[in-house]
Amino acid sequence: MSIKTLTLYNFNTSYSFGKEEKKEKEQSLTSKLARLKDSYEKEGLRKAVEGIIIIHDHGHPHILLLQDNNYFKLPGGKLKPGENEIDGLIRKLTKKLSPTGTPVSDAPWEIGDHVSTWWRPNFEPSLYPYIPSHITKPKECKKLFVVTLPEKCKFAVSNNLSLIAVSLYEIYNNSQRYGAVISSIPALISRYTFVYLNVD
Amino acid sequence: MSIKTLTLYNFNTSYSFGKEEKKEKEQSLTSKLARLKDSYEKEGLRKAVEGIIIIHDHGHPHILLLQDNNYFKLPGGKLKPGENEIDGLIRKLTKKLSPTGTPVSDAPWEIGDHVSTWWRPNFEPSLYPYIPSHITKPKECKKLFVVTLPEKCKFAVSNNLSLIAVSLYEIYNNSQRYGAVISSIPALISRYTFVYLNVD
Ligand SMILES: [Zn+2]
Ligand SMILES: [Zn+2]
Ligand SMILES: [Zn+2]
Ligand SMILES: [Zn+2]
Repeated sequence: MSIKTLTLYNFNTSYSFGKEEKKEKEQSLTSKLARLKDSYEKEGLRKAVEGIIIIHDHGHPHILLLQDNNYFKLPGGKLKPGENEIDGLIRKLTKKLSPTGTPVSDAPWEIGDHVSTWWRPNFEPSLYPYIPSHITKPKECKKLFVVTLPEKCKFAVSNNLSLIAVSLYEIYNNSQRYGAVISSIPALISRYTFVYLNVD
Repeated sequence: MSIKTLTLYNFNTSYSFGKEEKKEKEQSLTSKLARLKDSYEKEGLRKAVEGIIIIHDHGHPHILLLQDNNYFKLPGGKLKPGENEIDGLIRKLTKKLSPTGTPVSDAPWEIGDHVSTWWRPNFEPSLYPYIPSHITKPKECKKLFVVTLPEKCKFAVSNNLSLIAVSLYEIYNNSQRYGAVISSIPALISRYTFVYLNVD
């Protein structure tokens, strides 16, 4: 039995938000695909993990996205060779979303179910929720995990990024703006019952 | 921990298919919505369960759909008041897909995870993977469960319907033809690893 009920806290009153100088790799798709090619040549298949962090805003479920102009992404990143998925996700979320210097042991992330897996067959933007027919060497495998938060925590993201909370209503059926992966999230988390708490 | 690996059998060699005279309610959307209105007035929220039956065809995952001309649906149906979801799904799958007279205790369905929940806010075709904002009385709640099969079984569907196996590649991103619920299935089941067996 996997857990069916998730407790969500209010985005605006539970959490505090800041920005910091952080080293962030170039966000453009061109430079991401160039880095992917590079890492594929050295290490083979890129294994990535991303978190679907769920909070609420006056009783409506929202997820957290990092925004760079018109580009939206889930927080997460590439696993180190041999790194455990959960450990890697906690490390990446802490690095990208917590104030600099936060030890991983103090990180607020409550990692839940692995809810989907996406594959990149070529050095191209498209990801699929399966390995496309007759592809024997996919280039990237990305796993999405549900993440919830305790009733208080501090966020600090890179100066060039914004951390935004987007409602499920906004991303559903909106792959035009958010891409196939993010727009699939409402269906992926629809099996949970949410409990909405408010803390001042 | 939920089960991560699903064993699939070959569609064409593992299973046998027939058609029978079965009482099937009118499939058109108009008559379905009329029945929904009727049942809502008597019993309130319609609770439905549907099965995502996964098999393979030369190593490519496929799911089973019932087809009535250009209308595709997952097998399943309405729960009786108070009926358990798993029991109800087994009852409905047996009634719609097994030879007439098959006792529920002989049914081949192996019911797995509940992977998504869809809501119908109004007496209208659209379903959403959440209760839309400020809807207090949704009309229908539909839960989807993964279903796998043993290495042999017999299917018999109503004369006016076809049972078809459709690949994940065909339904992905194809809500135009299959609707929002069915086209979301590739993402919903992407977290499983499939093992493909062939039995003659
Ligand atoms: Zn509101
Ligand atoms: Zn909002
Ligand atoms: Zn093939
Ligand atoms: Zn096929």
